[in-house]
Amino acid sequence: MAIPFAVIAGVGPGTGAAVSRKFATSYPVALLARNPDNYESLVKEINGSGGKAIGISTDVTNAQSIKSAITQISKEFGDAGCAAAIFNASAGFSRKPFLDLTEEEFVAGYNVSSKGAFLFTQATLPLLLKGEPTSKYPPTIIYTGATASIKGSAQLSSFAHGKWALRAMSQSVAREFAPKGIHVAHAIIDGVIDIPRTKEWLKDQPPEAKISPDGIADAYWHLHTQPKTTFTNEIDIRPMLEKW
Amino acid sequence: MAIPFAVIAGVGPGTGAAVSRKFATSYPVALLARNPDNYESLVKEINGSGGKAIGISTDVTNAQSIKSAITQISKEFGDAGCAAAIFNASAGFSRKPFLDLTEEEFVAGYNVSSKGAFLFTQATLPLLLKGEPTSKYPPTIIYTGATASIKGSAQLSSFAHGKWALRAMSQSVAREFAPKGIHVAHAIIDGVIDIPRTKEWLKDQPPEAKISPDGIADAYWHLHTQPKTTFTNEIDIRPMLEKW
Amino acid sequence: MAIPFAVIAGVGPGTGAAVSRKFATSYPVALLARNPDNYESLVKEINGSGGKAIGISTDVTNAQSIKSAITQISKEFGDAGCAAAIFNASAGFSRKPFLDLTEEEFVAGYNVSSKGAFLFTQATLPLLLKGEPTSKYPPTIIYTGATASIKGSAQLSSFAHGKWALRAMSQSVAREFAPKGIHVAHAIIDGVIDIPRTKEWLKDQPPEAKISPDGIADAYWHLHTQPKTTFTNEIDIRPMLEKW
Amino acid sequence: MAIPFAVIAGVGPGTGAAVSRKFATSYPVALLARNPDNYESLVKEINGSGGKAIGISTDVTNAQSIKSAITQISKEFGDAGCAAAIFNASAGFSRKPFLDLTEEEFVAGYNVSSKGAFLFTQATLPLLLKGEPTSKYPPTIIYTGATASIKGSAQLSSFAHGKWALRAMSQSVAREFAPKGIHVAHAIIDGVIDIPRTKEWLKDQPPEAKISPDGIADAYWHLHTQPKTTFTNEIDIRPMLEKW
Repeated sequence: MAIPFAVIAGVGPGTGAAVSRKFATSYPVALLARNPDNYESLVKEINGSGGKAIGISTDVTNAQSIKSAITQISKEFGDAGCAAAIFNASAGFSRKPFLDLTEEEFVAGYNVSSKGAFLFTQATLPLLLKGEPTSKYPPTIIYTGATASIKGSAQLSSFAHGKWALRAMSQSVAREFAPKGIHVAHAIIDGVIDIPRTKEWLKDQPPEAKISPDGIADAYWHLHTQPKTTFTNEIDIRPMLEKW
Repeated sequence: MAIPFAVIAGVGPGTGAAVSRKFATSYPVALLARNPDNYESLVKEINGSGGKAIGISTDVTNAQSIKSAITQISKEFGDAGCAAAIFNASAGFSRKPFLDLTEEEFVAGYNVSSKGAFLFTQATLPLLLKGEPTSKYPPTIIYTGATASIKGSAQLSSFAHGKWALRAMSQSVAREFAPKGIHVAHAIIDGVIDIPRTKEWLKDQPPEAKISPDGIADAYWHLHTQPKTTFTNEIDIRPMLEKW
Repeated sequence: MAIPFAVIAGVGPGTGAAVSRKFATSYPVALLARNPDNYESLVKEINGSGGKAIGISTDVTNAQSIKSAITQISKEFGDAGCAAAIFNASAGFSRKPFLDLTEEEFVAGYNVSSKGAFLFTQATLPLLLKGEPTSKYPPTIIYTGATASIKGSAQLSSFAHGKWALRAMSQSVAREFAPKGIHVAHAIIDGVIDIPRTKEWLKDQPPEAKISPDGIADAYWHLHTQPKTTFTNEIDIRPMLEKW
Repeated sequence: MAIPFAVIAGVGPGTGAAVSRKFATSYPVALLARNPDNYESLVKEINGSGGKAIGISTDVTNAQSIKSAITQISKEFGDAGCAAAIFNASAGFSRKPFLDLTEEEFVAGYNVSSKGAFLFTQATLPLLLKGEPTSKYPPTIIYTGATASIKGSAQLSSFAHGKWALRAMSQSVAREFAPKGIHVAHAIIDGVIDIPRTKEWLKDQPPEAKISPDGIADAYWHLHTQPKTTFTNEIDIRPMLEKW
């Protein structure tokens, strides 16, 4: 019998990679990122250690690109449906005075975080619904949010408005599809994630000042394993030294 | 001396008209709507009753259209700056199963409510800042939100995600510009507004089941008159018979 | 015909006094505080400037004390009912390590802010309902909240838990009594109020760093004048220089 | 070497029992409830299946009763400290018109949910801090909340105000003790839990309309295992058929 797969959009060296490794211990995984540099070594690593992975260069803001990725995934992994779809893609985070923002810069915060999430969700939902009757755990969609999902800070309107829009959509999809057995969850990642890019940040502080990608992956996996009687639709995650 | 003006975007027969009438008792008002039918009679009414009003056909989702409206306003009303900018434009509210939404339909909920608000805010902020030193009340931006600004209901993702994005931006702008004396407020209009289009809604209920546009206008005016020591950044508004 | 009165609990030299002066321009006012020093000169001031005021030494945490105050008010002001009941009493605000709190200190934050509000509401609601049919504006209850009504900061559990409890009760009372025409509102006062006690705070900052009691009073009055179609159940208030 | 223990307050036939069983697979557990009927058979069950459990009749609203329980626990389980303290006690949930509530009924909602949580937290925190340096997982406090922790429904003020107060205290304790390595989490249990007492509720609906106590226990265990880099301070939990 074919086994269902997991799709992770927004794979990079941090959360996306950790989540991919975690879900790869149970499912074939499809790793999506625009730049193949972001998944190539990880695909090798997973395939080399007993798992099964493919990487697909995908632009989540482009409906055609996502559809084409999904077609390729189905061809590779068969028709058992999708067990988990993780949306970890995100617009860049940058502060800028409001009056200096171009329209393009403002909308950029929306295109990935929210429009991208919409396109990804529409493309994966049919496969999640397909896998539902035979899945071990309720098929799961998880969206990665941020501090900016619940606070609109000064000079951060581009990033924040896209993240708030994502959170709204997450609630809406959760309410429509929970009765069909699909588990939709939104994670508020409130703090600096410990990845290569943030190596120089908070250098004067102990490791507990940053969030561990593996910790996020474990939380996502726990969400995935929750039964239909016990859906968590939102969690927050922060390191023990975070001010909030 | 020139007196500052007010701009109301999203003028229709309900909230927009009531707000326009209210602010027209103190300021020259510029009424923006895509369709001139929405402001023409109101412009006449205001001009005929001792006020001063102009109407400008404007597409708030189009930067050029907004800029051209602002240029026209400055030409008509002079350079005293803007006392109040009210963003009352909104995407249409319609329920639809998530999987039936086209990309265009989804994004439509964003384009007016959020991108439009961004363009309107960028165009009016310099005029609000200009008017600040001499204004009687702190120059004010007010955004009209909805129930969907704080809840992502099933089948309402298009409308809701645009409204959440607007609320995020409202906070961000409020935090950046309050120290410069600009008062930014967001109103959660939680209920059915009593306008011609909703005449047949809640017909079996007393009038207190719907929100009065004049009541909203009074609330917006009160927000505008608040001093720098006492800014309200968010209010909710609902009729006494609303379930919430 | 008898005219309805207003009751303000928690009168001191700041918000309570400003609210009392404001409502005294339209109603006879009863000023409640534990210590008569807090209302005596104000009672004189109001009575000396054309208004009508009485002061009653009251312990809001004591049911009998509140009932006795209400009896005295009815005797003085007649049976036209209550137009507005403002609950401005509050536990003291003090930071303390959690493990150093005694049970009494913890519960103190509840007794005034929440139990006191319960007793005050129960005592005044019948009079608000009585006045409802003939009142000019919907009879109104307003509760004064704080930053700590929406955030449980470290070392502030005593104060915060009482304020959260008050906010919960405010929602519950609003939902039950709005259909009966009673307007219930909760104000999140997010910042330092400019009163004698805070004179030395934020001394290096301009006046716009503190909240004006008169601004709060104006906001409360506006809430009171809202019609049944347009109830605001929650507002926030902060000075323009507040970080939030 | 002595091993740390877990304490569960508010053990009954539902969540408390499930959480006790779950934590008993790793720790000696102390089960607190006022009525020994609520833990006696469970204590036998755990001790009979390879675990270690004691039950102590405790009134969480009474500081002396809690202290005495903690003393007894330390005597039984040694001085390795506490690995997890779960506060699952709760006031009864009952709707009643606001004006019909006695002061005692209103305050009852506070005494267990909030004052009880305070006393329990003060008594267990020193033991959690003691266990911290050698514990496998960060010592954890978890508070069980409800729908009423985030909504003050009509006629539910007694229950709701106690739950809001608990949530506030949870945040305050989390913020103070996270930097010391203590993990504090609050769970919003939003729905009917499937326990003997609710057997007749939602009878016309499938099992997925109720929350599984075992599902809650799994979620609490996951929270407990989170590392210092990845603390979740709040989760919600609801069954897939819940309207929210």
